[in-house]
Amino acid sequence: MRRAYDEELEQLHRKFYQMGCKVNEAIYKSIKAFVNHDKELAKGVIEEDKEINQFEHDLEQACIELIALQQPVTTDLRKIITVMKASADLERMGDHAVSISKSTIRVKGNKRNSMIEGMISDAGEKIKKMGEEVITAYIEYDTEKAVEIANYDYLVDSLTHDIKEACISEMKKDPELVLGATDYIMASTYIERIGDYITNISEWIVYFQTGEIQELNTHHSYDEL
Amino acid sequence: MRRAYDEELEQLHRKFYQMGCKVNEAIYKSIKAFVNHDKELAKGVIEEDKEINQFEHDLEQACIELIALQQPVTTDLRKIITVMKASADLERMGDHAVSISKSTIRVKGNKRNSMIEGMISDAGEKIKKMGEEVITAYIEYDTEKAVEIANYDYLVDSLTHDIKEACISEMKKDPELVLGATDYIMASTYIERIGDYITNISEWIVYFQTGEIQELNTHHSYDEL
Repeated sequence: MRRAYDEELEQLHRKFYQMGCKVNEAIYKSIKAFVNHDKELAKGVIEEDKEINQFEHDLEQACIELIALQQPVTTDLRKIITVMKASADLERMGDHAVSISKSTIRVKGNKRNSMIEGMISDAGEKIKKMGEEVITAYIEYDTEKAVEIANYDYLVDSLTHDIKEACISEMKKDPELVLGATDYIMASTYIERIGDYITNISEWIVYFQTGEIQELNTHHSYDEL
Repeated sequence: MRRAYDEELEQLHRKFYQMGCKVNEAIYKSIKAFVNHDKELAKGVIEEDKEINQFEHDLEQACIELIALQQPVTTDLRKIITVMKASADLERMGDHAVSISKSTIRVKGNKRNSMIEGMISDAGEKIKKMGEEVITAYIEYDTEKAVEIANYDYLVDSLTHDIKEACISEMKKDPELVLGATDYIMASTYIERIGDYITNISEWIVYFQTGEIQELNTHHSYDEL
């Protein structure tokens, strides 16, 4: 009995990891497609999001069934709660990759700005690294790493803040850029939100180890643009 | 034993309702402050968000303790899962009210546009009604109502889409509006996201009744701006 149960817990763990890799790939592709104006790649991200949603659905069902049938306590229960909460964050990260991709598909020969696209690409690289690190921290149950990742979220906030400032400044100079720059602002908002979800996942990794639910980054002191 | 446990479940239910009312109030105030340029009201929303975060924290802890100590099954477990998942959605709705409020505080004599502010106010009224209805549907365990609310989310998407289109059009005509209109676009994005969270809560109400986790609104077919 216990062996089958352990196997189910292990499977939950593996499936969460697989979902995390899928989501990171979607984010990476969506930003790459956005800055390269690659509509085919963007369509692929939207198509693959169905699979991510299915992952979340399956993980939620599996978690609830494990709780109902095995009545887990202490570490096992925390493991299940962590997957249940963090998979919802992963799913929403995937939704933001879809939003970025939709914006890529929508573009019809807008005037673009390569400087700002470069900034978005940089923010995308940063968020990709954070996304990969948080999944590694989860797999290794590395609380220290998780706290470190959450602390780095201010860098993403700062980069996306700069993108918005640059957009406003460029739009003022050139009204023809308004449509394109609005998309840039939206994309940077999505990247910022993805950073927030990564912070949430970090919090659940800390919860798994400590049993304490704590906010690692409240954003209350930071004046976003 | 059972009576104390029932009382704890009932308390969870009441506390979720209280949190929902707090969050709806925050959203209402944040949009009112935004369109009336009322910085004091906006500051109040940011201040009160700490209380909302505390509500979520307390509810999460209470849910996990109930699962660990009472090992609930069937209806009771579903009730706890619903509160645990939906309170995270409420908390994020509160975060968006904070983002709208921050944007209100930041404004320094930007040029404004009363037509667009009227549109934002309308979208705010719509989202306020949806927020109130979803909390009522939760309290009454009204699945039909929950599905209906989720189906109305396309109206919010449509209103926020129109706001963005209006902003782009006005910015093109008047570059001085760029700074203000960027705030309008951001505010409309937050309102749209709040609608998505309300849809999520509707899904959890349906789950409570049916035990089925189903997406009521995938957004996959709707081409957002």
